[in-house]
Amino acid sequence: MTEEIGRGEDAPPMRWNGWGDPQKAKDLPFAVRSLLPLLLGRIRRPDAAPTLEDVEIAPTALAEADLAAFAAVVGPAHVDAGREARIRHAGGRSTIDLLRRRQHRQVVPDAVIAPSAHDEVHACLRVAAERDLAVIPFGGGTSVVGALDPERGAHRGVVSLDLHRLSGLLRLDEESGDAVFAAGTTGPEAERLLAEHGLELGHYPQSFRYATLGGFAAARSSGQNSAGHGRFDTMVTGLRVATPTGALDLGRSPGSAAGPDLIRVFLGSEGIFGVITEVRVRVHPAPAERLFEAWTFPDFASGAAALRAVAQQGGGPTVIRLSDESETAVSLAQVGKIGKAMAKGASAITVYEGRDIEHRRAVTSDLLRRAGGTSSGEGAAEEWLAGRFDGPYLRDALLDAGVFCETLETATTWSQLHGLRAAVLNALRDGFTEAGAKSYIMCHISHIYPTGASLYFTVLAGVRGDQLAVWDDVKSRVNDAILAAGGTISHHHAVGRDHAPWLAEEIGETGIRILTAIKRELDPQGILNPGAVIGRGVTAHPAS
Amino acid sequence: MTEEIGRGEDAPPMRWNGWGDPQKAKDLPFAVRSLLPLLLGRIRRPDAAPTLEDVEIAPTALAEADLAAFAAVVGPAHVDAGREARIRHAGGRSTIDLLRRRQHRQVVPDAVIAPSAHDEVHACLRVAAERDLAVIPFGGGTSVVGALDPERGAHRGVVSLDLHRLSGLLRLDEESGDAVFAAGTTGPEAERLLAEHGLELGHYPQSFRYATLGGFAAARSSGQNSAGHGRFDTMVTGLRVATPTGALDLGRSPGSAAGPDLIRVFLGSEGIFGVITEVRVRVHPAPAERLFEAWTFPDFASGAAALRAVAQQGGGPTVIRLSDESETAVSLAQVGKIGKAMAKGASAITVYEGRDIEHRRAVTSDLLRRAGGTSSGEGAAEEWLAGRFDGPYLRDALLDAGVFCETLETATTWSQLHGLRAAVLNALRDGFTEAGAKSYIMCHISHIYPTGASLYFTVLAGVRGDQLAVWDDVKSRVNDAILAAGGTISHHHAVGRDHAPWLAEEIGETGIRILTAIKRELDPQGILNPGAVIGRGVTAHPAS
Repeated sequence: MTEEIGRGEDAPPMRWNGWGDPQKAKDLPFAVRSLLPLLLGRIRRPDAAPTLEDVEIAPTALAEADLAAFAAVVGPAHVDAGREARIRHAGGRSTIDLLRRRQHRQVVPDAVIAPSAHDEVHACLRVAAERDLAVIPFGGGTSVVGALDPERGAHRGVVSLDLHRLSGLLRLDEESGDAVFAAGTTGPEAERLLAEHGLELGHYPQSFRYATLGGFAAARSSGQNSAGHGRFDTMVTGLRVATPTGALDLGRSPGSAAGPDLIRVFLGSEGIFGVITEVRVRVHPAPAERLFEAWTFPDFASGAAALRAVAQQGGGPTVIRLSDESETAVSLAQVGKIGKAMAKGASAITVYEGRDIEHRRAVTSDLLRRAGGTSSGEGAAEEWLAGRFDGPYLRDALLDAGVFCETLETATTWSQLHGLRAAVLNALRDGFTEAGAKSYIMCHISHIYPTGASLYFTVLAGVRGDQLAVWDDVKSRVNDAILAAGGTISHHHAVGRDHAPWLAEEIGETGIRILTAIKRELDPQGILNPGAVIGRGVTAHPAS
Repeated sequence: MTEEIGRGEDAPPMRWNGWGDPQKAKDLPFAVRSLLPLLLGRIRRPDAAPTLEDVEIAPTALAEADLAAFAAVVGPAHVDAGREARIRHAGGRSTIDLLRRRQHRQVVPDAVIAPSAHDEVHACLRVAAERDLAVIPFGGGTSVVGALDPERGAHRGVVSLDLHRLSGLLRLDEESGDAVFAAGTTGPEAERLLAEHGLELGHYPQSFRYATLGGFAAARSSGQNSAGHGRFDTMVTGLRVATPTGALDLGRSPGSAAGPDLIRVFLGSEGIFGVITEVRVRVHPAPAERLFEAWTFPDFASGAAALRAVAQQGGGPTVIRLSDESETAVSLAQVGKIGKAMAKGASAITVYEGRDIEHRRAVTSDLLRRAGGTSSGEGAAEEWLAGRFDGPYLRDALLDAGVFCETLETATTWSQLHGLRAAVLNALRDGFTEAGAKSYIMCHISHIYPTGASLYFTVLAGVRGDQLAVWDDVKSRVNDAILAAGGTISHHHAVGRDHAPWLAEEIGETGIRILTAIKRELDPQGILNPGAVIGRGVTAHPAS
């Protein structure tokens, strides 16, 4: 194979009220439009959404002196209290966010501040603390769990701390395969900079084209190549963090027993303890070739057993994914091809990159075949790769057509996987049914581990009336079902504000006390991302 | 190969003043006795150490009411304020500990309490808090960093909480490869229980025969099979913890983005936040066969480059170790065989277990050969395996003969590895030279990662006079050198009390503040392992 594997293309600025490149926004493909009434019944096209100019927002709560104080740190050009900047930083890219962006009246931060370096971030946090302003760290703006809601908590105002100017490869140790990036570096930027040295990071979540390395770390991201390269957690070898009361420079060695691993305190902290300013990561030689193979299983259960065998053997593919019968049937994984072929059974794709790929494919294929799989050639796997970052564009088109569309995910052990899947499917179906909506639900496994796997759900629903209110109720029911069935409240989307009420159940009261104690120590005024992760129970002053 | 690989043999109770099985204590082999004067000059045999009966200890600080309160929880048979129990729980098994055990007057805990279950541990912590008593959690008693010193801090007394009765396989999920053990289960017990199901944990540190799963977790242990199965950190899928103010049950799924991973707060906490009562671990099919191959490199540098290639390629051996020229020369790695052959160059051993071993050996051997290695057959690797848990017996014999012997370890990135090694060698040699002692220093790499490796040092020295005082000075100098050269203060021995003053430099003031905040939240009276990890700066009441 001679295909160039680098994925370092920059993406243009994100569409203000939808996903990704505005030029790529599209209408629903004909096949999808034909299929939807069959699945969901008649859908009413909603009223036109407001343009950016039509959106109504409150005036900024910041005084000139506040803006001047930030300007003294970052320069006046990087303090923006204008309408467009504030609206563009009003949230992430969950369906909740996108539905809010379709409303006339919107809640937005009071200003957007864009520091360019660790010391400026640190100084911005001090300014915010002095002036009683909440701070929402903002990387690529791709959170789907409400981590970017402009919540001011008990403070006088709230600023969005946009980190895009913290960009670039700061240090590269080629011998050790260790690279330090400024935290605002996006996925494509990082890969392009590494490709110049023949290296790759290999982290490709669906948000790849926009999300930043700091965001991957803060949210404990997991990418499509996790079977080969692990979750982002396992790629991080060091962090630099600015907190309102001090800074940290963590990560001296790849293995250590020097007390608890404090890097792990900040992975998953989503900006509530501090702002990650530098991310050090393990990198590897850019793969020179790639092998594809798609598979078909009689059903999801036999496919899942096959993936378990692959995970427990180890040394397998770089990417492996298994769609359930519903997802296989409409081939949603192949963007824009819903309804192309109502395939039977459960389809899987495998991709191999890097060392020893022929051997790895041979031993993996042997396992998959013994578990009941039939190879279906390269085509479907290559198609998946070509469109793998484009799923969210289809969601925008569905929302435009009045179809509710959202994704959610969890993970558990192999022995609890089918029980968890059934519980989530039931909660989704029953929730929409009670709201009088037909739904179509798909599920896939995309991250495997020796002891378990993730489950990723995509739901389409013909919701009439207030989609936000209906989803709020359905999602709540799903979250309860996930915890009752032994799942984690999130495998890779994180907690944000949307999952915070369920985190307490997952980690218990003592777990929340630990997070709260760290928060109070590092951010005693509670200015950082109020309401995220721990929820709204944390006040500025300790209870004691 | 048909050899039975299970290593589940139980060890008899530890020798009170030395390592391991009292029946295995031995005199120095003739070859070693011949070599020592050449390396270290003339050594004076020390005065005979006291017997257990000769040791002087202070009377217990505990009143009858204290003992009765614990007895009400664990039963009177499991509260022991007798001489022998107290002396046997006076510390771990560092050379400092062993030299202290050779003194007439010894510092010991006031009593030994042995709960049998999570709830009893929890109740014991409440009794201790009510009665102002410090608690030192005690697993296998193998700490080599002072984590078991019976330090009472500001409290009225100190008890050793012996966890050996929390033993056994509590739950096994064969489909997921996930097993829950009571935290006091020893390495051999765990492997024996798993072997009944055809499974293995695969964690074999040198302390394996005595240390417990709770101890492996609390100290972030790394075992000899880490190249194949990872550090103990990566094996842990869940923890149950009792703290003085609440309990935790952590670990729902193999991957999660549900906030920071709180398991990692307790891995490496060495009993300062709570007592680990259950450890959930990833297990795998017991290996049916094993391949050995020993290698010789022209020098340590070429050998290290070879190990780097193996680590960065991945999918290699289960065990890989490289001795430097000094260690190779005296073959200390082969217990009892010092001086057998003054080998040249740097020797390495590889062991392959589990899946696909012929292929893994082929690709690894190819890399090692291209890096300048020459295969030297199976023998040396098989001999290493046979004696791999027996090194500490030789140390006892050396101490008996008046030779100072200790080990220490660190880790860093590949690019800093040789600078770190030189810095530690210099600090050791110069330190002993200034103390008027000849020394012989050996080093090996035994844990490799894509971005770096561990360094493990063994030092022999002909110290005259106060060995404890000399080592205190030399070790201090080494610790400074490690941090200055970019190493971690410990790769797998942990922090305890011995390394605590250096942890603050490694993780910074803000890092220490995080640990202190967690400590104050969970253990507001500071009863748990006072002085360990964070050091002695933590008082019972917050500074604020």
